[in-house]
Amino acid sequence: MAVLDLAALHERISAELGSDVLVRDREPYARDDGAEGPYMPGLVVRPRERAEVAPLVRLCHAFGVPLSPRGAGTGTVGGCLADHGGVVLDLGGLRSIVDIDERSMLAVVEPGVLTAELHRAVEARGLFYPPDPASLKICSVGGNVATNAGGPRACKYGVTGNFVLGLDVVTGTGASHEVGHRSIKGVTGYNLAGLLVGSEGTLGVITRCILRLVPRPPFAVTLLASFADEAAACDAVHRCLTGGVAPAALELADRTCTELLARSGTLAVELPPGARALLWVELDGDGAGLDRALLRAADLCRGAGALAVAEATDPATREALWDVRRALSHTLRAHWPKKISEDVAVPLARLPDLAAAAREIGARHRVDVASFGHAGDGNLHVNFLYDPKASRDIGERVDRCVADLFAATIALGGTLSGEHGIGLSKRPYMPLEQSQELRALQLALKRAWDPQNILNPGKVFPPG
Amino acid sequence: MAVLDLAALHERISAELGSDVLVRDREPYARDDGAEGPYMPGLVVRPRERAEVAPLVRLCHAFGVPLSPRGAGTGTVGGCLADHGGVVLDLGGLRSIVDIDERSMLAVVEPGVLTAELHRAVEARGLFYPPDPASLKICSVGGNVATNAGGPRACKYGVTGNFVLGLDVVTGTGASHEVGHRSIKGVTGYNLAGLLVGSEGTLGVITRCILRLVPRPPFAVTLLASFADEAAACDAVHRCLTGGVAPAALELADRTCTELLARSGTLAVELPPGARALLWVELDGDGAGLDRALLRAADLCRGAGALAVAEATDPATREALWDVRRALSHTLRAHWPKKISEDVAVPLARLPDLAAAAREIGARHRVDVASFGHAGDGNLHVNFLYDPKASRDIGERVDRCVADLFAATIALGGTLSGEHGIGLSKRPYMPLEQSQELRALQLALKRAWDPQNILNPGKVFPPG
Repeated sequence: MAVLDLAALHERISAELGSDVLVRDREPYARDDGAEGPYMPGLVVRPRERAEVAPLVRLCHAFGVPLSPRGAGTGTVGGCLADHGGVVLDLGGLRSIVDIDERSMLAVVEPGVLTAELHRAVEARGLFYPPDPASLKICSVGGNVATNAGGPRACKYGVTGNFVLGLDVVTGTGASHEVGHRSIKGVTGYNLAGLLVGSEGTLGVITRCILRLVPRPPFAVTLLASFADEAAACDAVHRCLTGGVAPAALELADRTCTELLARSGTLAVELPPGARALLWVELDGDGAGLDRALLRAADLCRGAGALAVAEATDPATREALWDVRRALSHTLRAHWPKKISEDVAVPLARLPDLAAAAREIGARHRVDVASFGHAGDGNLHVNFLYDPKASRDIGERVDRCVADLFAATIALGGTLSGEHGIGLSKRPYMPLEQSQELRALQLALKRAWDPQNILNPGKVFPPG
Repeated sequence: MAVLDLAALHERISAELGSDVLVRDREPYARDDGAEGPYMPGLVVRPRERAEVAPLVRLCHAFGVPLSPRGAGTGTVGGCLADHGGVVLDLGGLRSIVDIDERSMLAVVEPGVLTAELHRAVEARGLFYPPDPASLKICSVGGNVATNAGGPRACKYGVTGNFVLGLDVVTGTGASHEVGHRSIKGVTGYNLAGLLVGSEGTLGVITRCILRLVPRPPFAVTLLASFADEAAACDAVHRCLTGGVAPAALELADRTCTELLARSGTLAVELPPGARALLWVELDGDGAGLDRALLRAADLCRGAGALAVAEATDPATREALWDVRRALSHTLRAHWPKKISEDVAVPLARLPDLAAAAREIGARHRVDVASFGHAGDGNLHVNFLYDPKASRDIGERVDRCVADLFAATIALGGTLSGEHGIGLSKRPYMPLEQSQELRALQLALKRAWDPQNILNPGKVFPPG
């Protein structure tokens, strides 16, 4: 790596943008919500307005200094970390909801807007922005776009990318472009907005998002069904997907999670004895239709062998049930000193095989494993849980778990990541899924956006 | 343009792939369903199996001969024409439905499969492939992918790109890649499948498609509402979109179309006097919910001033109503010697402004105009209709209509094409929407896929 002249860059940034944009306390930027790092950035820049982004990127380009865009830092694969040193660009200060166009059903927002803020703002106007990653109260829309974040409601509505109409972007040379469109459909030139979605800050810095909205469903209800095992819960997933109830969400928790929740007493409903898998079923729609769907979904779950089906129709109970689901990752973290979380996805038919494989891999290497997540999309969060002080070879065993999980996923026709991205953490496993030639093609695309390779260099694609 | 050594290429193709792949009658390949051409290709190659595509592209690459992939030739902007001479690659022979995986809700098909064939095959298994361009009985899935084709049902379900999970593609060097995934979600590397969708054969040749399916809605009903003017019909569009009925389709026909259909007697229902705009409303779902939605949608249309609302619940009447809608383009063609069809899209709120602008532009230049199309997506097909022998300056006047329409669309925050693509026809207007710098960025992306620029050279992006 070349020696970076950060002092000179610091001076130029101060001169051009004012010293206020430079963040003194760089410590909070050394990690994200995953296991990578710490990587202390050389500089942290936090623009106060959109127009400051392009000049900053131009300076980094001129100085040949790497730049890692960062949203709210809730990612789990190190995508926003400055592992090459250089600049972290904190977009959290760009937090304006520029426009909510009710009649066109779209919102224009800056990247630092929190996902939950956007939810509240559009729902107050009778509209709905479906993407709901578990971190929705603390993650930002720009980060959601950069990783193509999903969430439970992706089951019915799709992921972040399905709601991105257009983006303002600054490329690696500091050039500004508006890509995409404000209309619902558009095929003028290449699908550049679609290419930027999920590109993890390696192609451009997103400075504004035009997002499609849908009408807010007037009502929603939540079912929590418990099962004797994961296979039965997976069968209920299939029945709900094809049974005419159009579930908004289908979220699974495996035996480890279920037993933990049963002991914790945090669930708003009591679980029957023998419950070893849980399925959250969210339904939304209008009143009469929803009542019918609720009965039908409960029947579908019972047909798959549900031990109990609890219905939550009041907002407080529903929110409590969903809070437990969203907190699962942190609940696991509270019970094990260390957690390695993967985010694999398989074709729907292979979901039970994936759940079984995760359990079997944990047993094989004597590592605790807990799986939960977006069963309706075939996307599971598989967590390997351990105490690093428990034994000398525990690190190695966990590594073998991760490698075996990815191999099993690929063998099942799946993919390394459903919604978290590759970042640094999964980069070593890319060759399992994508050939050297395919990776080279993607790096060639990156050169078109970022000829000097300053935007998140080395992320996503392993060297060579 | 360099002189192409087609005779030598012909010989090599015969030697490597057999002379059977060479199509003798090149005449049918000189045009598509639009106004461009004729451009007679130097050679037409029609592979019998997927594995023949890569060697063919490698030969064209070695000979530096341009290659234009062609689906069923139903495009309207000249995207599949050999305007540079060279080879037309007819993918219509690759017509195998490789797999329908019911439990994973996906289909794997070759590009030459007709869209209606796919519909039939998956519906027989209780599944549904929503994209339904008007040409569905004669267009192919590969062409749909290459143009990101839409259709009426895009209103509820989205366009072709929303159903593409993965693609097999041959790049401009003849390299084969599998991009995307078989899982519903996937963010491993860049969204290459999303970039190929709508790229009009300029980045790669699609040889296989992995398509997402959804459960087949058990029932569907169609409303045909008539209005005194387009503004009232546009108001009904807004009310239906936000009124809780989740329309599968909302298709508008303007005064010219409505009067033509009233006179033609082809409509299965009688129109009331004074009908000057029509709205097709398609609803789908289960029985009880659908009955309620039908009543509600009719009310919403009446609230917007509908003169009459006819309901079609039996499949034969529904199909007859949709046949009339799908035939509109050809109906117009039967009544005017010449038709120039545009395909602009605007944000939903501006739909009435677009309809009014189209009418006003026709009046200004004394050219008949007829608009119809996907109102629920803000995407109208605006047709300028004329007799080229009617007057000396008619061609000029039509050109001015087209230029004014695009300018009006951009001024309304819209885009040149909602689903047909740019091809040759709209290429001159690209600078209205995209800067030279943004076009240069896209051409740089093309170089990564097709370094020698043999795949549909010159399409989409105007020179300079």
